[in-house]
Amino acid sequence: MNSRRDFLQKITATAFSIPLVAGISPKSFSSTSLPQENDKVLRVALMGLGSYANRVADAMKDCKRAKITGVISGTPSKIKVWQARFNIPDKNCYNYENFDAIKNNPDIDAVYIITPNALHHPQCLRVAAAGKHVICEKPMSINAKEGREMVEACKKAGVHLLIGYRMHFEANTKEIVRMRSEGELGKIMFFQGLSGFIIGDPSQWRLNRELAGGGAMMDIGIYSINGSRYMVGEDPIWVTAQETKTDPVKFKEGVDETIQFQMGFPSGAVASCLSTYSMNYLDKFYLNGKKGFAEMQPSTGYGPIKSWTHKGRLDLPHVTHQTTQMDEMAGIILDGKVPMIPVDGEEGWKDMVIIDAIFEAVKTGRKVEIKYV
Amino acid sequence: MNSRRDFLQKITATAFSIPLVAGISPKSFSSTSLPQENDKVLRVALMGLGSYANRVADAMKDCKRAKITGVISGTPSKIKVWQARFNIPDKNCYNYENFDAIKNNPDIDAVYIITPNALHHPQCLRVAAAGKHVICEKPMSINAKEGREMVEACKKAGVHLLIGYRMHFEANTKEIVRMRSEGELGKIMFFQGLSGFIIGDPSQWRLNRELAGGGAMMDIGIYSINGSRYMVGEDPIWVTAQETKTDPVKFKEGVDETIQFQMGFPSGAVASCLSTYSMNYLDKFYLNGKKGFAEMQPSTGYGPIKSWTHKGRLDLPHVTHQTTQMDEMAGIILDGKVPMIPVDGEEGWKDMVIIDAIFEAVKTGRKVEIKYV
Repeated sequence: MNSRRDFLQKITATAFSIPLVAGISPKSFSSTSLPQENDKVLRVALMGLGSYANRVADAMKDCKRAKITGVISGTPSKIKVWQARFNIPDKNCYNYENFDAIKNNPDIDAVYIITPNALHHPQCLRVAAAGKHVICEKPMSINAKEGREMVEACKKAGVHLLIGYRMHFEANTKEIVRMRSEGELGKIMFFQGLSGFIIGDPSQWRLNRELAGGGAMMDIGIYSINGSRYMVGEDPIWVTAQETKTDPVKFKEGVDETIQFQMGFPSGAVASCLSTYSMNYLDKFYLNGKKGFAEMQPSTGYGPIKSWTHKGRLDLPHVTHQTTQMDEMAGIILDGKVPMIPVDGEEGWKDMVIIDAIFEAVKTGRKVEIKYV
Repeated sequence: MNSRRDFLQKITATAFSIPLVAGISPKSFSSTSLPQENDKVLRVALMGLGSYANRVADAMKDCKRAKITGVISGTPSKIKVWQARFNIPDKNCYNYENFDAIKNNPDIDAVYIITPNALHHPQCLRVAAAGKHVICEKPMSINAKEGREMVEACKKAGVHLLIGYRMHFEANTKEIVRMRSEGELGKIMFFQGLSGFIIGDPSQWRLNRELAGGGAMMDIGIYSINGSRYMVGEDPIWVTAQETKTDPVKFKEGVDETIQFQMGFPSGAVASCLSTYSMNYLDKFYLNGKKGFAEMQPSTGYGPIKSWTHKGRLDLPHVTHQTTQMDEMAGIILDGKVPMIPVDGEEGWKDMVIIDAIFEAVKTGRKVEIKYV
């Protein structure tokens, strides 16, 4: 028994030590002091203290590798509340004018940008210039050009750029991706993504073209876009799309209400997707292969995710997505871990390339080739 | 107690007698002798004794209103087998050369055409000219023009033309259509139909353009087309479509393997559909309204159909579809019953108009307006 216990202790120690040692790259610590034992937690400042930031903050209470050490907000009263909630000292609080000074703050490793879409680009560039890692909520930007600039800026600054793709760490999603990548579904033929909900308050920024860069597609359709890529395991090479607007008062010019879009992949697989702000009960993924299928419903909501395949139900246990996401992102940034499904800037940029193509397909009524250049 | 039993007997008698009396129209009996008590069964000759005819014949064993009294086939050995199975006298057996003589056969009220698609049109015209009612398997023809000619020919001959839409009599389907039409799902926003299977034997007529008029769309995609109409409760006014071919050897020029198509309806509702001969596990309908949803999977297979809505599972009891279909069609032809979802030639023709438009949309890559003229 002793020898077996010794063996297990040894392999456990080894398993844990590999990523911590081998994964450390100089740039992981380029903006902070050299790692100490108690430095192994990613210290995050949240930028933008709206409802989703609240959700992330609640989830981070259970994180083992990430914690909130700072906030950036344009609303002083919100900052006060957050300081009390998370014991944040005055020196770690910023507004949108002065947050470049975060550069000199050794208590903050990364900034999680959770602001309206159109602001991501300039904010990301400033955070990168301040030498801090960037975690940016999706969509990373409002078009591929800005997304590309964000990727390049972070590369140049030697900081990570991660996009807030929480599903990439979700257990059901990962298991289906594993099954597909190991051939358990056979050759992949079809993906279907239905992403939508009925949006409320017509005055919110998500329905303002200047701030949102679009409508449902930027916010919820992107789940079907991104999902098609990790579910199929390829990047689409063409897209067709059709827009429908039933409420032009709520959904003004440039703010999409409902878009159906279809994509083709290099292997010949096709995808059929729906993005909408006008329908509830729409959160479904379906992946069809020659040997089997996988289905998720709900597929990208906050959970629990429900899933099944031709082999039966999966329904893997629920963990708050943002808790796992932030712990795993800490592993990526601090230890150089490589996630099963990428969450970096290139991944986010590809989604923006596809969104640009969808909007072009809607406008022209033609099939649009997608080129990742 | 006695008075209540009398009352129940009276209303039962009334309920049954209304359609039998009020529904009788002169043309229902135009091709046969005047009705006797034992004439209330529709006497059907099956044309084309392939695998689906066998399925229909098996189902008709349980029919109360329809029976097989004749056959038409080009294969004498098949006729022998069917004569034995159904006790059919020689005088009720025909081949494709001589079946016009059915005109003088008082044992046959209707001919159910279950032959390759391209043959439906000339065969229907000959059956109508012989003064017999026509039941024609779907697709009714290989294009709208031929479908129209069939409708007009039957009208002129004073015979019924019914299309073999068995789902129109299926309990789950009817209950969902009832819920939708009574507003229980709210304003309808979206229909999704996924119809497909992996087709076997590459030498079968369904993969021969001359006989089939196409590929998967004619055979299985039509379920999503027709389903969209009875589920949404409207006829589509535009369509876009994209074709994908992964196996050009099996699916030759003009034989579609996989087509995605999208349709728009007058109310603003949209549909997203898939028709394929290359994927299994694809038999799903989903209907989304502002107040709820309905889902069917399998939705159009031979059953049992499984269904559920926002209110919970339906899963109404299974009855062999073709049994119900033939009994109900007997009611339509003999008693003038009006089915909840139409199954007449106009209904079949609309599907052909839509198929024409889908093929045009594939060819042009453009959105095609659908006009029912």
